[in-house]
Amino acid sequence: MCCDSIGLLEECMTERSRVATHGEKRKPVIGITVGDATGVGPELALKCAALPEVTRRCNPVLYGSESAVSRIARAVGQDPPDAMVNAGVLDGDALLPGKFTAESGLASYQAVQTAIADAMANKIDGIVTGPIQKEAWRLGGVRYPGHTELLADRCEVKDYCMMLTSDQISCVLVTIHVPLADVPGLLSVDSIFRAVRLADETMGRRHGRAARVAVCGLNPHAGEHGMFSHAEEEELIEPAIARARDMGISVTGPLPPDTAFTPSVRRDTDVYVCMYHDQGLIPLKALAFDDAVNVTLGLPIVRTSVDHGTALDLAWTGKANHQSMLAAIHMAVDLTDG
Amino acid sequence: MCCDSIGLLEECMTERSRVATHGEKRKPVIGITVGDATGVGPELALKCAALPEVTRRCNPVLYGSESAVSRIARAVGQDPPDAMVNAGVLDGDALLPGKFTAESGLASYQAVQTAIADAMANKIDGIVTGPIQKEAWRLGGVRYPGHTELLADRCEVKDYCMMLTSDQISCVLVTIHVPLADVPGLLSVDSIFRAVRLADETMGRRHGRAARVAVCGLNPHAGEHGMFSHAEEEELIEPAIARARDMGISVTGPLPPDTAFTPSVRRDTDVYVCMYHDQGLIPLKALAFDDAVNVTLGLPIVRTSVDHGTALDLAWTGKANHQSMLAAIHMAVDLTDG
Repeated sequence: MCCDSIGLLEECMTERSRVATHGEKRKPVIGITVGDATGVGPELALKCAALPEVTRRCNPVLYGSESAVSRIARAVGQDPPDAMVNAGVLDGDALLPGKFTAESGLASYQAVQTAIADAMANKIDGIVTGPIQKEAWRLGGVRYPGHTELLADRCEVKDYCMMLTSDQISCVLVTIHVPLADVPGLLSVDSIFRAVRLADETMGRRHGRAARVAVCGLNPHAGEHGMFSHAEEEELIEPAIARARDMGISVTGPLPPDTAFTPSVRRDTDVYVCMYHDQGLIPLKALAFDDAVNVTLGLPIVRTSVDHGTALDLAWTGKANHQSMLAAIHMAVDLTDG
Repeated sequence: MCCDSIGLLEECMTERSRVATHGEKRKPVIGITVGDATGVGPELALKCAALPEVTRRCNPVLYGSESAVSRIARAVGQDPPDAMVNAGVLDGDALLPGKFTAESGLASYQAVQTAIADAMANKIDGIVTGPIQKEAWRLGGVRYPGHTELLADRCEVKDYCMMLTSDQISCVLVTIHVPLADVPGLLSVDSIFRAVRLADETMGRRHGRAARVAVCGLNPHAGEHGMFSHAEEEELIEPAIARARDMGISVTGPLPPDTAFTPSVRRDTDVYVCMYHDQGLIPLKALAFDDAVNVTLGLPIVRTSVDHGTALDLAWTGKANHQSMLAAIHMAVDLTDG
């Protein structure tokens, strides 16, 4: 049964009160934005929201165009969702799989916007975002390049970080989408310290115990005492580590990056702080491509995301791998206080 | 039975002639320099040289101080080597495990020097180098920082590259021990092309068929069409790839570095060309720490090396893992023409 936004959220609030009265552990409500309707996002959201392992842990609510989601549910032989907020207007019958448009882009943007507003208003406990088509956002006149920038703006935060996480390995990135040549100049004691603090806080919350944070060096062999560096380890990374240690954070480093991700170091590490995009994402994707989850740290709301794109060539076939979305939902539940 | 340099090499030459006469495939002679005698190198060399899987494929000859190697053989309960070139003078009884000295450094240097001379004179078919203590070389007055610089100098080559290889993944590095900030400025069409050519030639020889070479981009997402780059992909990497393709080399790229090392890409890749040390060594060591081998490409002789240090705390205990040295010997045999 699809329900409208107001009906659904009232139902959720009712459950909140009921559970609060009886003192049971309330299941968190997780909003899943379906992403671009011409991609694989809606079918993954439908599939995951119906899984018993998901509904045991949370109440999933899809955010997207109900018309489009119904059409896709028929195409892949899924039932329509139990709970859905109709956000982002689209005519399902006018859509073609794999053929994104200005309209599909705008609708996917509106769904994310609605979910953020609901999360900020505490109507839902967390957001899992399905894959959008950035080019379709641009075509639709959306001024944000992607989810993260929209979230930071709506939540009015500047100090946020991206974390990629999987069963094998979790990495918080100090710098993200910048040229490699610009990385050394963008690092600062503050930015590294912030990443360490957010890594500690998030993984501590996830595991329910103090996290073990490992900070990578920037240079080969972590600079080998200045032989292969411009002293970034000594001047930037070590002071950030010292500051975190003074706060009681369990942190090691700067580690030589090439040996930081060996099995024995991984066993003793809950989360890595990486100086640049590929320092973290190369080992993460080499070790765990299918089930990686993207988490935005530093927001007042919980937000996780799949770590893949719209896979337009697989859209509406039911063949896309749902492991990343499933992992993103589990991670969102782990991070809620509920 | 230990034999002196002249006796041993005469024996090898005799075998060469004999085999040539009968038209059988001759087993290559592989020189194994034992590395610093106060580290784990000698015991690993002793162990590997005695393994049937090694002696089936080659005639291993140790290069090092006979006095030191005999002492260590007794300490770890190994037989002395069947074939050894006594190079580098040391008094075995004066050595302490884990306590390197100027003398142990100089002796390990002299052993490498002798092996290089023998390889250049075609007395042996390849060299496998055990782990040296760079600090001990310095103490001993050796003016080379490590093996690679010594080899390049004695072989009179400037255009050499380092390759790290394992069963899982092989990477040729365009830049090595330099600060990350200096990497973009050190790349050139020529240096990238040279790495591609050497990668193709070496892996082609190893596998006996055309190698599939994958070249990584420098920047996140390989620059995403200049959004996250200073056009290094377009101006440096793509022209190098085009030049290699014009020569008939099977080469792809520039690949986004973070997805270049996923299992599906690895299956279709024999060797990666990586722009900097950690781009190649992070995935290599994350996936295969114990059996990685270091190969110097571009030399007129075959040279492979273990991918670990002297492990001073394990010296003379017999506990060090011999997989990397074993893999280095196999790789050296693969690369000989014998």
